[in-house]
Amino acid sequence: MQYPAPIAKLINSFTKLPGIGAKTAARLAFYVIDMPETDVTEFAQALVNVKRDLTVCEICGNISDTNPCQICQDESRDQSMVLVVEDARDVMSLERMQEYHGLYHVLNGVLSPMEGVGPEDLNVPALINRLHDETIQEVIIATNATAEGEATAMYLARLLKPAGIKVTRLAHGLSVGSDIEYADEMTLYRAIEGRREI
Amino acid sequence: MQYPAPIAKLINSFTKLPGIGAKTAARLAFYVIDMPETDVTEFAQALVNVKRDLTVCEICGNISDTNPCQICQDESRDQSMVLVVEDARDVMSLERMQEYHGLYHVLNGVLSPMEGVGPEDLNVPALINRLHDETIQEVIIATNATAEGEATAMYLARLLKPAGIKVTRLAHGLSVGSDIEYADEMTLYRAIEGRREI
Repeated sequence: MQYPAPIAKLINSFTKLPGIGAKTAARLAFYVIDMPETDVTEFAQALVNVKRDLTVCEICGNISDTNPCQICQDESRDQSMVLVVEDARDVMSLERMQEYHGLYHVLNGVLSPMEGVGPEDLNVPALINRLHDETIQEVIIATNATAEGEATAMYLARLLKPAGIKVTRLAHGLSVGSDIEYADEMTLYRAIEGRREI
Repeated sequence: MQYPAPIAKLINSFTKLPGIGAKTAARLAFYVIDMPETDVTEFAQALVNVKRDLTVCEICGNISDTNPCQICQDESRDQSMVLVVEDARDVMSLERMQEYHGLYHVLNGVLSPMEGVGPEDLNVPALINRLHDETIQEVIIATNATAEGEATAMYLARLLKPAGIKVTRLAHGLSVGSDIEYADEMTLYRAIEGRREI
């Protein structure tokens, strides 16, 4: 005997999620059997809605339930700066900080010759378009501190600087709360290179 | 800005699952956004179906999509033995072994005075009923090797033995493939106590 079909199907769906193997999927499926019916219905509805109701903002490329997204629509935000990120998740992390009040632009990836991702695969033309009307004074590049992220930052800087726009990059250095003892060489190098007078 | 509502709801549903915290839930929710629509629809359907289509077998207490369950309906199985387990998941683990061909009985818990679980909270009366027609010759108690599992096994043995039924318990000892060095004292004690001539 195998699992009854309804359980087997649910286990199969759970295993499609990242980091969930067969054993965890079975544990989750059995947990769902004992969950209150309303929670399960809500869960199912949330799955369907997330595919149905989310869209990509045509201005900045962010994932949103409105188009343009809430951020692009918000006129109280500083319209003179655009922070460029790899991914919509980065926008949400930065928004949690509640200290940045400018606009965003989501690239939807990074340059990666290894994986065949070139500039034409990224949301770059829309960024160039946004710069035309000269409202935007500064572009802050916040791609990840990886080789691909750095390469993408360099590419964008070279592309945008000739147009006379101020292009900046997030600071690199020690994480707040981290030990120098455990920091890697590149981070230490960047921390020394970017040192500031106190 | 918080997450857009559809994402926030899905994250909230994921956090209701065991072992999934806020960060993992967010990672899974964003993964779902990029999943093929058919996979997401199937997932949602599987969640709803698992609540709708599963039932508890009125004979053995197993979780099944039929009532009685496939195992109780299967006349080719050995009708003379019943293996008693705590939980429907145990039935599925034992069935994966493909070596046991008797029937099952799911207690749906174990005796636990600490958590206020007494004999009346377990699926015991149905077990007593099944023993009335004398088809069943042996009851194999396969509760877990925990304090509660042991207590439940003792309770059942005392309840059933006076009725003249053979009551057995799964062997305890070293797991196959395990090192003596890493075995705990109780397991070693049980392994020595239960030693067999070779």
